[in-house]
Amino acid sequence: MSNNNIALVGIIMGSSSDRRIMREAAEVLDSFDIPHEDQIVSAHRTPTRLQEYAKHAEELGLRVIIAGAGGAAHLPGMISSFTTIPVIGVPILVYADKGPGGRFSAFGGLDALLSISEMPSGSPVGTMGVNKAKSAGIYAAMILGNEFSHIREALKRYKEQRYNQVLAESRELKDEGLA
Amino acid sequence: MSNNNIALVGIIMGSSSDRRIMREAAEVLDSFDIPHEDQIVSAHRTPTRLQEYAKHAEELGLRVIIAGAGGAAHLPGMISSFTTIPVIGVPILVYADKGPGGRFSAFGGLDALLSISEMPSGSPVGTMGVNKAKSAGIYAAMILGNEFSHIREALKRYKEQRYNQVLAESRELKDEGLA
Amino acid sequence: MSNNNIALVGIIMGSSSDRRIMREAAEVLDSFDIPHEDQIVSAHRTPTRLQEYAKHAEELGLRVIIAGAGGAAHLPGMISSFTTIPVIGVPILVYADKGPGGRFSAFGGLDALLSISEMPSGSPVGTMGVNKAKSAGIYAAMILGNEFSHIREALKRYKEQRYNQVLAESRELKDEGLA
Amino acid sequence: MSNNNIALVGIIMGSSSDRRIMREAAEVLDSFDIPHEDQIVSAHRTPTRLQEYAKHAEELGLRVIIAGAGGAAHLPGMISSFTTIPVIGVPILVYADKGPGGRFSAFGGLDALLSISEMPSGSPVGTMGVNKAKSAGIYAAMILGNEFSHIREALKRYKEQRYNQVLAESRELKDEGLA
Amino acid sequence: MSNNNIALVGIIMGSSSDRRIMREAAEVLDSFDIPHEDQIVSAHRTPTRLQEYAKHAEELGLRVIIAGAGGAAHLPGMISSFTTIPVIGVPILVYADKGPGGRFSAFGGLDALLSISEMPSGSPVGTMGVNKAKSAGIYAAMILGNEFSHIREALKRYKEQRYNQVLAESRELKDEGLA
Amino acid sequence: MSNNNIALVGIIMGSSSDRRIMREAAEVLDSFDIPHEDQIVSAHRTPTRLQEYAKHAEELGLRVIIAGAGGAAHLPGMISSFTTIPVIGVPILVYADKGPGGRFSAFGGLDALLSISEMPSGSPVGTMGVNKAKSAGIYAAMILGNEFSHIREALKRYKEQRYNQVLAESRELKDEGLA
Amino acid sequence: MSNNNIALVGIIMGSSSDRRIMREAAEVLDSFDIPHEDQIVSAHRTPTRLQEYAKHAEELGLRVIIAGAGGAAHLPGMISSFTTIPVIGVPILVYADKGPGGRFSAFGGLDALLSISEMPSGSPVGTMGVNKAKSAGIYAAMILGNEFSHIREALKRYKEQRYNQVLAESRELKDEGLA
Amino acid sequence: MSNNNIALVGIIMGSSSDRRIMREAAEVLDSFDIPHEDQIVSAHRTPTRLQEYAKHAEELGLRVIIAGAGGAAHLPGMISSFTTIPVIGVPILVYADKGPGGRFSAFGGLDALLSISEMPSGSPVGTMGVNKAKSAGIYAAMILGNEFSHIREALKRYKEQRYNQVLAESRELKDEGLA
Repeated sequence: MSNNNIALVGIIMGSSSDRRIMREAAEVLDSFDIPHEDQIVSAHRTPTRLQEYAKHAEELGLRVIIAGAGGAAHLPGMISSFTTIPVIGVPILVYADKGPGGRFSAFGGLDALLSISEMPSGSPVGTMGVNKAKSAGIYAAMILGNEFSHIREALKRYKEQRYNQVLAESRELKDEGLA
Repeated sequence: MSNNNIALVGIIMGSSSDRRIMREAAEVLDSFDIPHEDQIVSAHRTPTRLQEYAKHAEELGLRVIIAGAGGAAHLPGMISSFTTIPVIGVPILVYADKGPGGRFSAFGGLDALLSISEMPSGSPVGTMGVNKAKSAGIYAAMILGNEFSHIREALKRYKEQRYNQVLAESRELKDEGLA
Repeated sequence: MSNNNIALVGIIMGSSSDRRIMREAAEVLDSFDIPHEDQIVSAHRTPTRLQEYAKHAEELGLRVIIAGAGGAAHLPGMISSFTTIPVIGVPILVYADKGPGGRFSAFGGLDALLSISEMPSGSPVGTMGVNKAKSAGIYAAMILGNEFSHIREALKRYKEQRYNQVLAESRELKDEGLA
Repeated sequence: MSNNNIALVGIIMGSSSDRRIMREAAEVLDSFDIPHEDQIVSAHRTPTRLQEYAKHAEELGLRVIIAGAGGAAHLPGMISSFTTIPVIGVPILVYADKGPGGRFSAFGGLDALLSISEMPSGSPVGTMGVNKAKSAGIYAAMILGNEFSHIREALKRYKEQRYNQVLAESRELKDEGLA
Repeated sequence: MSNNNIALVGIIMGSSSDRRIMREAAEVLDSFDIPHEDQIVSAHRTPTRLQEYAKHAEELGLRVIIAGAGGAAHLPGMISSFTTIPVIGVPILVYADKGPGGRFSAFGGLDALLSISEMPSGSPVGTMGVNKAKSAGIYAAMILGNEFSHIREALKRYKEQRYNQVLAESRELKDEGLA
Repeated sequence: MSNNNIALVGIIMGSSSDRRIMREAAEVLDSFDIPHEDQIVSAHRTPTRLQEYAKHAEELGLRVIIAGAGGAAHLPGMISSFTTIPVIGVPILVYADKGPGGRFSAFGGLDALLSISEMPSGSPVGTMGVNKAKSAGIYAAMILGNEFSHIREALKRYKEQRYNQVLAESRELKDEGLA
Repeated sequence: MSNNNIALVGIIMGSSSDRRIMREAAEVLDSFDIPHEDQIVSAHRTPTRLQEYAKHAEELGLRVIIAGAGGAAHLPGMISSFTTIPVIGVPILVYADKGPGGRFSAFGGLDALLSISEMPSGSPVGTMGVNKAKSAGIYAAMILGNEFSHIREALKRYKEQRYNQVLAESRELKDEGLA
Repeated sequence: MSNNNIALVGIIMGSSSDRRIMREAAEVLDSFDIPHEDQIVSAHRTPTRLQEYAKHAEELGLRVIIAGAGGAAHLPGMISSFTTIPVIGVPILVYADKGPGGRFSAFGGLDALLSISEMPSGSPVGTMGVNKAKSAGIYAAMILGNEFSHIREALKRYKEQRYNQVLAESRELKDEGLA
């Protein structure tokens, strides 16, 4: 966390191999100056820490938890079972084969997507698309925008920039031609 | 909406046939005394109303929008494109055949699940499981709990009740036997 | 449990609505005179009980845990994370729609199958087919057959009966004709 | 667009990264001397431009709109909601992982295929196969062939050439042998 | 065909059992006063008639062909291979089991959807959603609107009616309440 | 078998519950006067009989074996592993739930389709569509037509009848109208 | 075809790009000294040649037709519609993206598998696994073994060789150790 | 097997190409000092050896059999049909294309997963995730832990190590920062 303020968002993931994907959530939050706190909490390797993390999150006053997980992907849903803080889940695409001929994923992240989205109604997770950690960062900002008007304003500026970027891309397309 | 206060949550759906499913979101909000405002806004039949609804939502001060849609299910994502209020999407299972031999769904809601969750990162939707409108109501309460401590407390009581319900179910199982 | 001996197998499930399916596991164990103990333990509604149940299972000396769950289906994998007793998982098919026009499942149990089988290597679950609680009972008996020779013998008799049943069915087919 | 005449076809896509695929639609139209006009219109980054583009298309007298989009892929359906000009949709396969070990798509374009084809009946999109922008160009020519007999004739010549190409390939196979 | 004018649209299907679904295409065309001609042409039972039908369609001056088919669903693509008239394909959901316990579809129409949409680029089919014969009728009208301004106007009125219908539904929802 | 001649085709299935589906194969063979012999051979309940059946089939001079199986569906492939007689496989759709609310299949026969078709190259099975036992009967006749010209002729008459049936259906459609 | 005798098997494919896969069918037939004749016949680019090829196949006295196709994959089924010679279908996996970042298939051959296997009962195709052209060659030999005892004997020798190969592989594993 | 004691676990696989994946099961067993015996037994190339292997396994006193297989993947289920020793199945992801442009799997191991898990209830297989041979080794140790307390203790130490590893990873993440 590059920001010294008290963390508003907790980013957790099940393994250090998820850092490559989850980094994008942190980058978005940094770009909005939203302080966050990042940990590795494995539902399967450190199951006793789930409840501990939930308690820690409440004491720290976290407003949103972003949890990334692949495969059976229990982390986001288990955290939601232990807390009432809104949890944003990022299904991570994992590779069943990482051999010399290249990587191949068995389920393309569908396993994680369903393990996160199909939670029972009392412990829901706001599920993002597969590997969309950046979306999780934006969605956290949208939730925080309810309390922090400067975040809402920052989001509006961000949307304007994207609007202008498309106009620029379209002009470039016109200049260069498509075919 | 049975509550006279100013709405905190907007519930929208693409068609009156979605009311059967989306009703559960309203019931959860009512049980937590969270005022909501409900409309039918079709991304496809009333596309010009999308922007209008987004403006209306901001002026009304809505904190969360719950949007249910089936099939191509553009409503939640399009609303997210027009606003910075957090949007919760409910994929609705639709039936390709409702003929005399019974109903049959072509994709079991997978089409709607992907149309909602796979939004680009700048306009994310917090996606629930298929037909899980009740989850959407709980998740809205989790988001609102950041601002309204009585909602957070109500959620904690709700979780306790569910805990006790399982204990009661387990005792009943023990008494009656499983086989 | 109809058997007074100390339980060798623990059957757990996430909700009393799973009893209809999980009953078949208990019936198989009863038919082999294998004592079992049955509880409802919800990973999501009673997450704090997971660790408690695992401790209880070890103290009770359970040799096998059969866990049934549907949807996000975290129960079998979370139990495996807390214990070294072999866990058998039964993916349960749940219905996204139980309305007046009939039941419809969004994913036909594939969500639960993947949530159970795709556990990381350190906390594996021996996964059965969708709704195959009876298979779980037989598989528990196969594991117990390593320690209890009378269970192994009972399994062999069971296999013989099935063999003879097929011969009888085939004779019946011959007598009646197929077309 | 290499052709100076008034555009008959509008090609749009959600992002400049789609140019690599959508280029093939333009190439086909160019080969039939069908004038086209190409833009980037993002349903999610520039939602307010959707209606504007539809109005522009009608004023310009476009006869066909080809829209390519990936992931949640709302562009083709939203355009169809705003206009009565026939829309041809190209589902684009996007990659959830573009990391150092190679690209991997979560859904292989199935998400976009369903988001485009499963539109409600009042706003249909003529859906092509995944990444088949070339098909979109041909299909646009088939539609235009109703009004412009020289396009119909050009299509017939194109079909003849393909017929002859297969005969040539078959002769080559015979000469070289298969095994 | 209830209309005496020369047919503009040909509706074909592979079997009389497809009439239940394809009827909706005819009803839409009738509502727009678009004359159509309907036949059963099976790619598999009457393969020699494919070419014959294509020739007939051209001589008759048909502007659009709507073809419905289920399972392997070759009819729309094979017709497109024989002609340059735009073909609209309707994937039909077929039942692998129609036994006493109810109907069940093996693939929910996905087989037909892919068999129709994944045509090679030279013989494309404008593919509709599964069982969406009504969409096919509307899409045919959108194509015909290029040549016949009264059809384009009729489509615009149809869109207006749908817009007003949603407003009415929304008012009804407000009056009755959702929960 | 209603025919007294020496059987040319062996029909086998894994369970008497498959008779409902496999009956159609027998009916087709009977309609072509092709003698067949029908048995229940379970790969899983009577695994020792697989080799025995293969030997029996060769001694009896069977020319084709039709094997139907559902779920893991090992029967067709295992028979092909034991013999060089061509094996036709029929994937059977099985129900994971046959409870009071109706039947539901977990995989719609896809499990059986892949278990049969994805055999290694040395032991192939000519795979039919899900539940398509009638197709298996026709395909057996196509294979037998190589040796028995009267079967080939009968097949040609059968194809003619189907051709005429479609013409009759089409005329009926014209008379009654589609809409 | 390296063999001068009259062809017993016809191998056809839709495009010269399928030669890479279909070559394995020819190699197997060559290894069994089964004469074959190979052509490119495209259902979509040369639809008029389908009937012609069927007539040619019958006059030539072909006993088996092996047809490979990808995507919509109509070739095997359409050939079966035109003839009573047994058709073996090979679903070919095609790539939706062949760009600089690597190849990616949208459906992994499932589209072709279903387009071939789900034919209506009157025109069945003996479907092989995806890309399993070698299986098609073996299956053709199994069919031909009914008429030609030397082919049946060759198949038995082939099976013996495979048996011995596994024993050798197993010995090698024992010598080298697995871990 | 690096261990001289009598084997407790038998590892089998269908082909020497599976050694790359199955090696991980052996490594885990070695790390727990669990003696194992490894063979290649192909259900399809050496079907007669299935029963032989089952008999061998019982005589040798094996307590667990780990069987890996891809594609139609009959090996684990067929072994379970022949024995009452618990069988652990590892679905192996196979490649339909291994050509110059890279490897591609048709079904990502789903075929093998279903062929193994969807066994009928009397011959169950404890199914692992796709390619998860390491999980199979751990699960075998969990089963053996019932009889051998030193294995149970070793498993507990292994779980502790993993717990500590996550803590270390989390500290590293904190030091380096996520973004």
